[in-house]
Amino acid sequence: MTLKILFINPVGTDAYDAHIATLLGRIKRDDVEPTVVHLAKGPEHLEYHFYEHLVMGDTLKEVRRAEKEGYQAAVIGCFYDPGLREARELVSMPVVGPAESTMLVACSLGHKFSILVGRRKWVAKMEDNARMYGLSDRLASIRPLGIKVVEMLPEHDRLLSSVRREAAAAVEEDGAEVIVLGCTVESGFSDQLSRELKVPIIDPVVTSWKYAEMQADIYARLGISHSKVGGYERPPDEEGWL
Amino acid sequence: MTLKILFINPVGTDAYDAHIATLLGRIKRDDVEPTVVHLAKGPEHLEYHFYEHLVMGDTLKEVRRAEKEGYQAAVIGCFYDPGLREARELVSMPVVGPAESTMLVACSLGHKFSILVGRRKWVAKMEDNARMYGLSDRLASIRPLGIKVVEMLPEHDRLLSSVRREAAAAVEEDGAEVIVLGCTVESGFSDQLSRELKVPIIDPVVTSWKYAEMQADIYARLGISHSKVGGYERPPDEEGWL
Amino acid sequence: MTLKILFINPVGTDAYDAHIATLLGRIKRDDVEPTVVHLAKGPEHLEYHFYEHLVMGDTLKEVRRAEKEGYQAAVIGCFYDPGLREARELVSMPVVGPAESTMLVACSLGHKFSILVGRRKWVAKMEDNARMYGLSDRLASIRPLGIKVVEMLPEHDRLLSSVRREAAAAVEEDGAEVIVLGCTVESGFSDQLSRELKVPIIDPVVTSWKYAEMQADIYARLGISHSKVGGYERPPDEEGWL
Amino acid sequence: MTLKILFINPVGTDAYDAHIATLLGRIKRDDVEPTVVHLAKGPEHLEYHFYEHLVMGDTLKEVRRAEKEGYQAAVIGCFYDPGLREARELVSMPVVGPAESTMLVACSLGHKFSILVGRRKWVAKMEDNARMYGLSDRLASIRPLGIKVVEMLPEHDRLLSSVRREAAAAVEEDGAEVIVLGCTVESGFSDQLSRELKVPIIDPVVTSWKYAEMQADIYARLGISHSKVGGYERPPDEEGWL
Amino acid sequence: MTLKILFINPVGTDAYDAHIATLLGRIKRDDVEPTVVHLAKGPEHLEYHFYEHLVMGDTLKEVRRAEKEGYQAAVIGCFYDPGLREARELVSMPVVGPAESTMLVACSLGHKFSILVGRRKWVAKMEDNARMYGLSDRLASIRPLGIKVVEMLPEHDRLLSSVRREAAAAVEEDGAEVIVLGCTVESGFSDQLSRELKVPIIDPVVTSWKYAEMQADIYARLGISHSKVGGYERPPDEEGWL
Amino acid sequence: MTLKILFINPVGTDAYDAHIATLLGRIKRDDVEPTVVHLAKGPEHLEYHFYEHLVMGDTLKEVRRAEKEGYQAAVIGCFYDPGLREARELVSMPVVGPAESTMLVACSLGHKFSILVGRRKWVAKMEDNARMYGLSDRLASIRPLGIKVVEMLPEHDRLLSSVRREAAAAVEEDGAEVIVLGCTVESGFSDQLSRELKVPIIDPVVTSWKYAEMQADIYARLGISHSKVGGYERPPDEEGWL
Repeated sequence: MTLKILFINPVGTDAYDAHIATLLGRIKRDDVEPTVVHLAKGPEHLEYHFYEHLVMGDTLKEVRRAEKEGYQAAVIGCFYDPGLREARELVSMPVVGPAESTMLVACSLGHKFSILVGRRKWVAKMEDNARMYGLSDRLASIRPLGIKVVEMLPEHDRLLSSVRREAAAAVEEDGAEVIVLGCTVESGFSDQLSRELKVPIIDPVVTSWKYAEMQADIYARLGISHSKVGGYERPPDEEGWL
Repeated sequence: MTLKILFINPVGTDAYDAHIATLLGRIKRDDVEPTVVHLAKGPEHLEYHFYEHLVMGDTLKEVRRAEKEGYQAAVIGCFYDPGLREARELVSMPVVGPAESTMLVACSLGHKFSILVGRRKWVAKMEDNARMYGLSDRLASIRPLGIKVVEMLPEHDRLLSSVRREAAAAVEEDGAEVIVLGCTVESGFSDQLSRELKVPIIDPVVTSWKYAEMQADIYARLGISHSKVGGYERPPDEEGWL
Repeated sequence: MTLKILFINPVGTDAYDAHIATLLGRIKRDDVEPTVVHLAKGPEHLEYHFYEHLVMGDTLKEVRRAEKEGYQAAVIGCFYDPGLREARELVSMPVVGPAESTMLVACSLGHKFSILVGRRKWVAKMEDNARMYGLSDRLASIRPLGIKVVEMLPEHDRLLSSVRREAAAAVEEDGAEVIVLGCTVESGFSDQLSRELKVPIIDPVVTSWKYAEMQADIYARLGISHSKVGGYERPPDEEGWL
Repeated sequence: MTLKILFINPVGTDAYDAHIATLLGRIKRDDVEPTVVHLAKGPEHLEYHFYEHLVMGDTLKEVRRAEKEGYQAAVIGCFYDPGLREARELVSMPVVGPAESTMLVACSLGHKFSILVGRRKWVAKMEDNARMYGLSDRLASIRPLGIKVVEMLPEHDRLLSSVRREAAAAVEEDGAEVIVLGCTVESGFSDQLSRELKVPIIDPVVTSWKYAEMQADIYARLGISHSKVGGYERPPDEEGWL
Repeated sequence: MTLKILFINPVGTDAYDAHIATLLGRIKRDDVEPTVVHLAKGPEHLEYHFYEHLVMGDTLKEVRRAEKEGYQAAVIGCFYDPGLREARELVSMPVVGPAESTMLVACSLGHKFSILVGRRKWVAKMEDNARMYGLSDRLASIRPLGIKVVEMLPEHDRLLSSVRREAAAAVEEDGAEVIVLGCTVESGFSDQLSRELKVPIIDPVVTSWKYAEMQADIYARLGISHSKVGGYERPPDEEGWL
Repeated sequence: MTLKILFINPVGTDAYDAHIATLLGRIKRDDVEPTVVHLAKGPEHLEYHFYEHLVMGDTLKEVRRAEKEGYQAAVIGCFYDPGLREARELVSMPVVGPAESTMLVACSLGHKFSILVGRRKWVAKMEDNARMYGLSDRLASIRPLGIKVVEMLPEHDRLLSSVRREAAAAVEEDGAEVIVLGCTVESGFSDQLSRELKVPIIDPVVTSWKYAEMQADIYARLGISHSKVGGYERPPDEEGWL
């Protein structure tokens, strides 16, 4: 059995594809075949709610196409989890959001976790998501790094030093026992940093991918995925909008 | 001073415009000039997350156009509050969501409120919104009527009898002191029904409109609207997506 | 239609009447006729629970007299919301509390709000109220200014500079996107300060008044006010205590 | 050491004094001297917020007089806990509310408790109190018996049979492991009923009295009572209102 | 890479070993080598807190032995999650509890989940765990089946029919979109039942195993496991109790 | 009537017995006969979950022996409340945990309380307990003193000065109105310190003892103790594990 899983960079640039593909290649299961795609058009980052809207149509198209082509799961590769509910409504295979899956896994790794986001702008939606996912009680804090998404790859050293600083502060001042990196571009260095800081640094690309592998595996073996009763009920074909 | 406020029916049909316009005409302030619009294309209802996505682009265009044309506020006329965060990011004038404003007002009318939604499908998002708005503690229950949006106007008597039945059950069994009608089409009869059932039945069109009048008034007099620090920070013009 | 609304300064001094009347005159609707009253006796401020008790009887008399004289709403002008439940039990017209109405409106203006109260003494009851109103999740912090009620008008500059300092700290350190001024005497400068600090500063006199205008308008048009089922059930006349 | 503790029936009738005195006599510590008082005027019950206001002044006078006369604690004998915060502000000796103390003790007797109140009217304030005390998570349900306070002693059999019925329903349907009797007049039979129903039935008179004995004892030995920092800060004598 | 994972039946009987081993054999990853063990002594079920204590010592020994022998993860196979915190304190490899992992995964499968436990006795600890894990907001209900652990395998048909009945009731009456089977012996039929009832029925053996595979995989590749800062800090060897 | 109450130091050392016995002798009721015991073997402190397991068996034996010998209550003398649920399952007389009882009493002494624990390690379980007891909303903060249990008696001055420092910080920075000493060895000086710091410092030995006296008294007079319905249901004798 080979599991096919799609990782969507829901942005109109291929700037992150190689970074993500390399990381997935390093950590994926042997029996899993990853595909990394980006969108033909749209902003280069999703720091704004409006930008999420701009990319949602094409993101959902990618998810639906993957299901038709026999994929067993898809990851929508942005820590805002854009389109997660919409995608789950449209398809039956598991769809994974980095924020949801990473926060869930962080819950089993320590008493409380802190999320290191790029900018203060992001805090409101991250807290909204944590609250909506019912996980606020496990959230120690959300700390902005003062870095934009588009700066993260080019200014790698600045990213790393700010992650070091804020992770230490979260552990010492906010009671965090686990650190969650709050952007899919803020990734690829979690294992080294975990060893260095002696506290689990959780990478949303790694974790959402591993979570997707788990869900794809369960789906392939048992046919179990998200519920289609209630919130994820599919729109009826006869209404003509699918 | 005349306040101009836009009421958007965020659907691709004019089927609700007259109903809404008549209702607004009956309850609006004398110094307020209402405009009711619908979208050129899109589903006739928004019972699915995906449909919300389909209409969001045009809804946001209407909100932005209104601000440019000197409106003081806009109501996005669907009880899912589609695009509320996105719209507030894009404009400075107040944008009102029927669910948010009606739940807030319901909080000052009694100890707990119940929401009567059309179908069970809606419950998940309504509860998510109540949780995200921080209002879960005031929510007695969400009860589905077993009626689709598109059936509400044509099958008015069935709508009314099911509202009577579920409102009574919410008051007697769930501890509700206030009843919120959970769809903008489920509107126009709240005053008669309140008298009949001797409990406040809150109409989301009336309440969101009155809330919008209040916010437009404050905005016109004092310049105060939603915060642009944090969650509603506006995307920068220079990124070219506005 | 002219709406008559009463603003009660629930203290035994006329020291705040002119200040409030001027502010209301500046921001009221054209079709609204405000009356500002104070009590014949009682403390000059309500910083203590006991003082709330001392003024409650006369405050309730004012509310009941207003209803008899055809008013459509009353505001009990203290941020502790003294007598709010008692008043709603006794009358059918809307009764507005500055804390309740201002916190509710603040919820639609940003992700989280901070309240700037006069002294630490006040924090316990403010937090109790926020919890009782079900709004704790939206509360970023409560910060004391270190100023008594009776010092606020005479020491206006000290008041303003401490509001500036604590508002900035709430935005930068506590994650507030909206600032609520936590005393009805801490009022009259919110528009200038909002522009200066580039974050909404919410005035409890303005907001409770605008909320009362909205509720009075709905009550006059549709007869809808707070529920008389449950918590606000009226004592029976035949028991002889009304 | 003899501990003097006051039990106030905060109503304008002596109708409950003998009932309470007999009950206290049966369960009090040997080294405790109880005094039961009622007020000279006021309603015979406190089912309405307004009635709480009517008796608060005289209730607070009793509490203050007791402290002056060397009492070590006072119980304000109504399950609404009327005047609890006000009394703690005014005196240093412990003041006990039946609802607060009984809910706290119920927390150590089982996973969740249900409160059996007289009428639906009471539910809103009971839930408000549970929320304000931070105990909502332990509350299984509040069930009204459909009985007024003034009917409880005269119609003892009806009271008992409705308590039996609702207690059983709370255990079977709501998950209660402990039953709290939600009125000080709903008292005197908890031990027999606990044996009969094989579940702890908690009497608010017994429990608040035992809690008061405990607090009086700690206060007499160690001088420790409620905090005077923050919410219970005492009004300054020089303001002249004490 | 082959991952070795231990599944402990923390009871003094081999009665469940074959059942579990068969189930794991059916759903495990190809590159994973499962071992199922039981304890030499102890009760046949853990329906009582005291029984959890009785088996904890030997359970922890198994976990520690597994780590020494090169296992990458262990599952403590009881839905009470007995010894989860203790085990994580003692070892560095991931330790998985069926309740924690299954509730976390259920969160990504639907809006709310219900847990079907054997008897009412279990409800208190299950709710305590849900609360402690911070997941109460996602829990629709806990429904007892009226079946003891030791009856589940012998009376398979009764188990199945009661699961069918309570699952349907949870979906229809409690708002559950996902059903969690609340006992590791209540397992092995979730895929058939999910198809039959058209709602995800989540098997705690399958889910905890898949979660353990995911965590073992992450641990093997990146060295990341639960935090050793704070709650899971290991007792110092020099104290001599390890 | 003489009430016999057992205080168990659940550690394998007599190092704390004299300290506790002296303190209890100073504050106990005249009609109460205290017994202080320690265990024959086990660690000298319980800073680790595993150590709690190591002493649980002997602790439960002491509790059960006390019940057989006619005691009316027992206190398990560690602020982690080890074995509290297990003990309540096994016996009918009240069993008191220092953390549970002290947090409950702290709730009636001020708006919010802070707990001063020995080391950061302890915070996770203390927060878990507060959450499980449903008391998180009343918890201002948990502050570690940086002191081990075994250092507390020998380094009394260091203990005292760190309590002074952190208590002041909790009051000034975290909004605490009450300070809870979070270890039974951190005891014996609460009255002096309360006077010195002018804020209630709550001693877990004193408070759990007084709470046990109250519960023993109620149990002796009325037969009321914790519920045996649900969570504390006793294992059946016939299963042979008691």
